Amino acid sequence: MKLEMICTGEEVLAGQIVDTNAAWFANLMMENGIEVQRRVTVGDRLEDLVAVFQERSLHADVILVNGGLGPTSDDMSAEAMAKAKGESLVENAEWAERLHDWFTRHGREMPKSNIKQAWLPESAVMVDNPVGTACGFRVKLNRAWLFFTPGVPFEFKQMVEEQFLPFVKATFDAGSQVALRKLLTLGRGESSLADELEAMALPAGITLGYRSFMPYIEIKVFARGVEAIKALGAVTDEIAARLGNVVVAHNRTSLEEEIHARLNNSGISLSVAESCTGGLITSQLVGFPGSSSYLHQGLVTYSNESKVRVLGVSPQTLDDYGAVSIQTVEEMAKGARAILDSDFALATSGIAGPDGGTEEKPVGTVAIALATKGGVYSQMVKLPRRSRDMVRKVSAAVAYDMLRRELNGEAVIVDYSSISRYPK
Amino acid sequence: MKLEMICTGEEVLAGQIVDTNAAWFANLMMENGIEVQRRVTVGDRLEDLVAVFQERSLHADVILVNGGLGPTSDDMSAEAMAKAKGESLVENAEWAERLHDWFTRHGREMPKSNIKQAWLPESAVMVDNPVGTACGFRVKLNRAWLFFTPGVPFEFKQMVEEQFLPFVKATFDAGSQVALRKLLTLGRGESSLADELEAMALPAGITLGYRSFMPYIEIKVFARGVEAIKALGAVTDEIAARLGNVVVAHNRTSLEEEIHARLNNSGISLSVAESCTGGLITSQLVGFPGSSSYLHQGLVTYSNESKVRVLGVSPQTLDDYGAVSIQTVEEMAKGARAILDSDFALATSGIAGPDGGTEEKPVGTVAIALATKGGVYSQMVKLPRRSRDMVRKVSAAVAYDMLRRELNGEAVIVDYSSISRYPK
Repeated sequence: MKLEMICTGEEVLAGQIVDTNAAWFANLMMENGIEVQRRVTVGDRLEDLVAVFQERSLHADVILVNGGLGPTSDDMSAEAMAKAKGESLVENAEWAERLHDWFTRHGREMPKSNIKQAWLPESAVMVDNPVGTACGFRVKLNRAWLFFTPGVPFEFKQMVEEQFLPFVKATFDAGSQVALRKLLTLGRGESSLADELEAMALPAGITLGYRSFMPYIEIKVFARGVEAIKALGAVTDEIAARLGNVVVAHNRTSLEEEIHARLNNSGISLSVAESCTGGLITSQLVGFPGSSSYLHQGLVTYSNESKVRVLGVSPQTLDDYGAVSIQTVEEMAKGARAILDSDFALATSGIAGPDGGTEEKPVGTVAIALATKGGVYSQMVKLPRRSRDMVRKVSAAVAYDMLRRELNGEAVIVDYSSISRYPK
Repeated sequence: MKLEMICTGEEVLAGQIVDTNAAWFANLMMENGIEVQRRVTVGDRLEDLVAVFQERSLHADVILVNGGLGPTSDDMSAEAMAKAKGESLVENAEWAERLHDWFTRHGREMPKSNIKQAWLPESAVMVDNPVGTACGFRVKLNRAWLFFTPGVPFEFKQMVEEQFLPFVKATFDAGSQVALRKLLTLGRGESSLADELEAMALPAGITLGYRSFMPYIEIKVFARGVEAIKALGAVTDEIAARLGNVVVAHNRTSLEEEIHARLNNSGISLSVAESCTGGLITSQLVGFPGSSSYLHQGLVTYSNESKVRVLGVSPQTLDDYGAVSIQTVEEMAKGARAILDSDFALATSGIAGPDGGTEEKPVGTVAIALATKGGVYSQMVKLPRRSRDMVRKVSAAVAYDMLRRELNGEAVIVDYSSISRYPK
């Protein structure tokens, strides 16, 4: 089966919005063992749409079309499809009724323009949209099924998951018998991971994929076929064991997600004291609903005075060792924990750059500590001086991983291949 | 001139990375008065690349090709172009020498695979890349110039700005005599802005564009032609005056950028106390190098206990009025300011959702305060309960705008069309 995607909309073509629907879709398809072979992005010109529908329908078996189903005059996917096939638009009685119901249910009068959303090409099969006013539809032209979906991301995603994917699987027997596990890794480069795992003899039907989103590399372990799916769990565990400390989570996309899942409604409390990460840790955790159940506070003590006044760091320590030091970051963590007697506190202090580095402590030097009720763990790492953003993100990830390992009862300070550590 | 873009690379097609190069490119072109008319994304299959080069070269005048210039076996843009035109790859002596120099300068031995990057289609015109090992090149096929650029974002951007844009302007006399001003707006919807401005009589050659990136809508004022460019400043000011308070910055992409520019090295100091925004304000400001020159601290006092212990909010105030109240947020701002006697302090406390709302204070209720050395300003707003993320971002933006207006000596609390305020 040959699958392509057509993205419509002036705002996508003109870069006014980044096309996250396209990336999400291709990724979901890949996770289901189906490859997207080409993606065409066009604006809101009727003749361009007609041309691209006709042209691609000669090459693909299925074309996912995204966008252009709204009520305004620049939404013209249905009209273009009808024209491409040489047929008329007709009102779909079922969807017209659903539209009226939808507006009644939301206590609003239906604007005249919205009825347009019930006009579909004559041969179209209507596709339900339970969460919006734009129904989807599919039309057969030449060798292809063109499957039309709304541009609004949550409507699009629901329609793809609930309607498109089952349709493709049923019609083309595609993507069946595929299973996937994901390993989240930290502190080892993609080519180094790939080299290491290339040496493994994987069972037939098991393949690996890599996805980089800083500061993590995600390893996808795909299994195709019954035997491979049976072996998937054991193979994934074997890979994780082989890679050791750099594997920091299973089936998660970030360590903050892992930490949130572990702490949420656990009765465990956390305080955070941040300097170089500058609120990143706090902000990431607050991004999850429910984080108030465990997060006492996040204190971004950016100035030395604030470290002294808010966290109780000793001015002598700052004088003797500097703000970026094991000694200071330990006092920061202990101070942040003590204020409300939290179970744990994380602290960071480092040089994110681009300026502020010295020969002894260059940009990328970051001290990180975890305080518990029983004591404090700390380390000072040397991160690649790539970007300010990167230094902050890796620092936050290492801090989360220290807490994760402590929660597991494992050694808190461990080596990651590509992150070097200063001797204490 | 008809401009198209071809994006190559399995990782782009498969959604492993979001294609930010494409959005950046289209946006830059638009700002130069040039429209991208179609974008095709293909993977790393030679026959697909050959087919798309041949096909699109029949329709476009210029095609910007991005990616596939690296040293590995799945980088095959040059090979595909040569095949599409029916010519050979030949070593470009100039670039081969530059490659050797590049590795010598970086103190590394050149891997054998890299010499591939000097092999270009026979008829190609080499395009310099001063910041990487992949040179660009351009080839004429059918009616089109295909212009090849590297996928690494900073190499790509430099080549587009320094080489592609001048080439297009010189060759097609395109995009000349275009100028652009941008207005950043907050608190009024795109369709409402467009309705308001549609009523204005704009001089010939002046057009408007809108770009939405939450929580802002950016208005782009384009001027094409000498007369329009002369009028641009006055027209932009007229638009800003007509829209009033919702225009929060000129030629900036965010309010945090405006605040950073105003405070950086100004001698003015700022503390922040955040509850519902959860470190977002602090984290955004720390994102700018140099923010340590003015940012004393950002205290995310997420729990009530932390508000009391760290900021000195009175337990009685919390009992009497609740955490989300004018009274509490004023004490938060005053407390945060007082710790280090900062010039200003911003504070937020609200209900970001999805849970935690009440009938009296539903999700989206946010109290915001600005403390100065002379007093405190505050307001409690009711934001649309869209997403947790949205509530946090709008709250941060309103807080920045209060500080911006204070720095301007303007009224601190003002109305924005789509943000309603609770009576005090």
